[in-house]
Amino acid sequence: MTNVSAALTSLDTNLDAALARLFELLKIKSVSTDPAFKDDCAKAAQWLSDDLNGIGFKASVRPTAGHPMVVAHAKAARENAPHVLFYGHYDVQPVDPLNLWETDPFNPRIVEVNGAKQVVARGSSDDKGQLMTFVEACRAMMANGGLPCHVTILFEGEEECGSSSLPKFLRDNAEELKADIALVCDTNMWDAKTPAITAMLRGLVFEEVVVKAATRDLHSGLFGGAAANPIRVLSRALGKLHDDDGRVTLAGFYDGVAELPADIAAQWKALPFDGAAFLGGVGLSVPAGEKGRSVLEQIWARPTCEMNGIVGGYTGEGAKTVLPAQASAKVSFRLVSQQDPAKVVASFRAHMQANIPADCKVEFVSHGASPAITLPFESPLLTKARGALEAQWGEETVIVGSGGSIPIIGELKRELGLDSLMIGFALENDKIHSPNEKYEVTSFAGGMKSWVRVLEALAA
Amino acid sequence: MTNVSAALTSLDTNLDAALARLFELLKIKSVSTDPAFKDDCAKAAQWLSDDLNGIGFKASVRPTAGHPMVVAHAKAARENAPHVLFYGHYDVQPVDPLNLWETDPFNPRIVEVNGAKQVVARGSSDDKGQLMTFVEACRAMMANGGLPCHVTILFEGEEECGSSSLPKFLRDNAEELKADIALVCDTNMWDAKTPAITAMLRGLVFEEVVVKAATRDLHSGLFGGAAANPIRVLSRALGKLHDDDGRVTLAGFYDGVAELPADIAAQWKALPFDGAAFLGGVGLSVPAGEKGRSVLEQIWARPTCEMNGIVGGYTGEGAKTVLPAQASAKVSFRLVSQQDPAKVVASFRAHMQANIPADCKVEFVSHGASPAITLPFESPLLTKARGALEAQWGEETVIVGSGGSIPIIGELKRELGLDSLMIGFALENDKIHSPNEKYEVTSFAGGMKSWVRVLEALAA
Repeated sequence: MTNVSAALTSLDTNLDAALARLFELLKIKSVSTDPAFKDDCAKAAQWLSDDLNGIGFKASVRPTAGHPMVVAHAKAARENAPHVLFYGHYDVQPVDPLNLWETDPFNPRIVEVNGAKQVVARGSSDDKGQLMTFVEACRAMMANGGLPCHVTILFEGEEECGSSSLPKFLRDNAEELKADIALVCDTNMWDAKTPAITAMLRGLVFEEVVVKAATRDLHSGLFGGAAANPIRVLSRALGKLHDDDGRVTLAGFYDGVAELPADIAAQWKALPFDGAAFLGGVGLSVPAGEKGRSVLEQIWARPTCEMNGIVGGYTGEGAKTVLPAQASAKVSFRLVSQQDPAKVVASFRAHMQANIPADCKVEFVSHGASPAITLPFESPLLTKARGALEAQWGEETVIVGSGGSIPIIGELKRELGLDSLMIGFALENDKIHSPNEKYEVTSFAGGMKSWVRVLEALAA
Repeated sequence: MTNVSAALTSLDTNLDAALARLFELLKIKSVSTDPAFKDDCAKAAQWLSDDLNGIGFKASVRPTAGHPMVVAHAKAARENAPHVLFYGHYDVQPVDPLNLWETDPFNPRIVEVNGAKQVVARGSSDDKGQLMTFVEACRAMMANGGLPCHVTILFEGEEECGSSSLPKFLRDNAEELKADIALVCDTNMWDAKTPAITAMLRGLVFEEVVVKAATRDLHSGLFGGAAANPIRVLSRALGKLHDDDGRVTLAGFYDGVAELPADIAAQWKALPFDGAAFLGGVGLSVPAGEKGRSVLEQIWARPTCEMNGIVGGYTGEGAKTVLPAQASAKVSFRLVSQQDPAKVVASFRAHMQANIPADCKVEFVSHGASPAITLPFESPLLTKARGALEAQWGEETVIVGSGGSIPIIGELKRELGLDSLMIGFALENDKIHSPNEKYEVTSFAGGMKSWVRVLEALAA
């Protein structure tokens, strides 16, 4: 049985050794998008496989059409323990512009800022530092009574360049990778002291609509008034997609949209989140979404309809009296809860059709339709993880949403049927993808211990 | 006193000589847009000046910054006769693509098509053939008792390349060019047998509107729902510019829009104009303007609001989840009757302002604002000219509108305060600006005689 307190103590005691191991990994230039670093990617995979084998996992490097995967398995001390699949990625972003780095991005160092120690290196936060929190937690537990859960680890080497090998790898190895839940560490804390679990990711429907009228561009003097104008038709139809309260008018659009559970709603209300500052940072001030919803709700928990592009007619300098033959727009929908992407697509297309005059044509191109992912709020695993993080950090765990998507979460759901607990210890200001990327030592040390408590809680 | 019947007879008798003079003018390669033909333009001006001096005008070639003008004056036999200013242009379009011409565009010839003789050459219709109808009419009258009206002739050499010297020339010579009415021959007959006077030209207001929101493009996942989207704001505001009946919703937009006089309305209703064929020619079928208005009304007599261009966000292939920082549109209004361009601009801008959320900005660029030009339907001069044309052609004169503008008409109004009678004898199928341009000999012969009758009628 896992000796939790011994494991936690050993993590504190051996922090420098853990940092030394992280530094070894950070020194490997595993930039996945640049073929020049192909061997470095393979080296990082091998390093991880070796390290995991060294602490008792059965690990191997698994080739793909791109950079290799690392897969590792370890059994819990107790046979009927739950089984978790931990996902992380060992590849990193390119370092350009190199001249903005204060020191070599692949020569990690500890700097102290306002008394807080930070690991500065490319990948320190995204995602080598984060994934090593889990590896170190496993190391400590395996040295102190064993793991409380069966653990499968999957490290990918193509996250920063599109994860093109991942879906097939998941499909081909579904049996080997099966688990009760996935743990994904590619996310942030609420702030440096407050842990967070990302439980909601909005889905995305992306449609392109083309309105066609005359067979050629027309002169607006000769034909203006009598000939259908695709820009007019398109803008009128798009203009009806929202009502005066910012709600989307499509039939059935809000079907499946769940209200937040009372405790989450209360937590969000109490969060020190400054909506005005969030919008003010980009020069705005008035929340543009549904009236009566907070900014956090609007970006995390409410569905949207947005036009991402529009074009038609003459767009150069000055004037041209043309009635164009066509106009088009890109329209996307962020989905939440149980909204059905196919129904949203159908409702949008029906709306456009209904708003097109008889002699115009409308054509659609789909650029994707994926549902929202929401961890069931009542899930016992979520409740256990929340408690474990609170025990570690001494602060209530914030359940957050993400307005955008995290592709791996969708793949894990689609290919393996797995829900994901998104628990990460990065901070908003870690400068991931930017020069001078850093990871707080508090994130690293607290993260390691968090995983000990989370795995123990999940097994309870 | 003019001997009208002698003049008409002499025009019939001397048709071949008149055609021979037209051929001389057509042989001069007065392509105004190409500097290689600068001397040819000067030569055409000189030829016209010489010809006019030869028949009794006081004519001269007048230099400008571009190609020269020709100005000629001749007095009526009767001192208190009305004074007309006749406008035409001696310059022609380039002849490209030359390989599509069946014969040399500057070697005019007569061809017979289905028994109808045509003059084929560049400029035969636009505008040398047309302007020579007036010169020949004057020649015949001056040889037969004199002119019934005082006549000033203005021939321009830059109509096909933007008339850049014209406004200043009109301004600088306003006193010399003053008259009671202008006669402009750059228009068509209704058909080969039916004369027409163009009495209505729509005005044009052309606005560009830019909606700005955030200080930079935003990620639609992170900000979507909370951040104002300029495309959404713009399309919504543009979508409100028309009501369900196709009427423009701007406050005061229809102020000054006159209904057609009953006789013109009745004439248009009776015209063999096939609105379905007009729209069918460009792949359309349903008139898009105000409900209850015919296609002719929609394009000639009713004001419009059209979007000529729109652009914002991502318009390339595929999807990009962006909320753009700005979106813009070009919006134009065709004006009729007494609509005030300044009021339309103000009303449009007020509409856009009223539909922009508090934290968006809207900016406007004006690309022009000019009023409609309508010859007063009750004008005795119009009535006289209608009658004169009917007497010549044996068919009721059609009073037509033009959906677009004819710049010279605006300049004559603006600079000289002159209304214009737009009377021309070209046909829709004259292939002006195209290879194998032609002018029907019936247009030429009937046009000459029409002018005799029109001048006589105006003086009555």
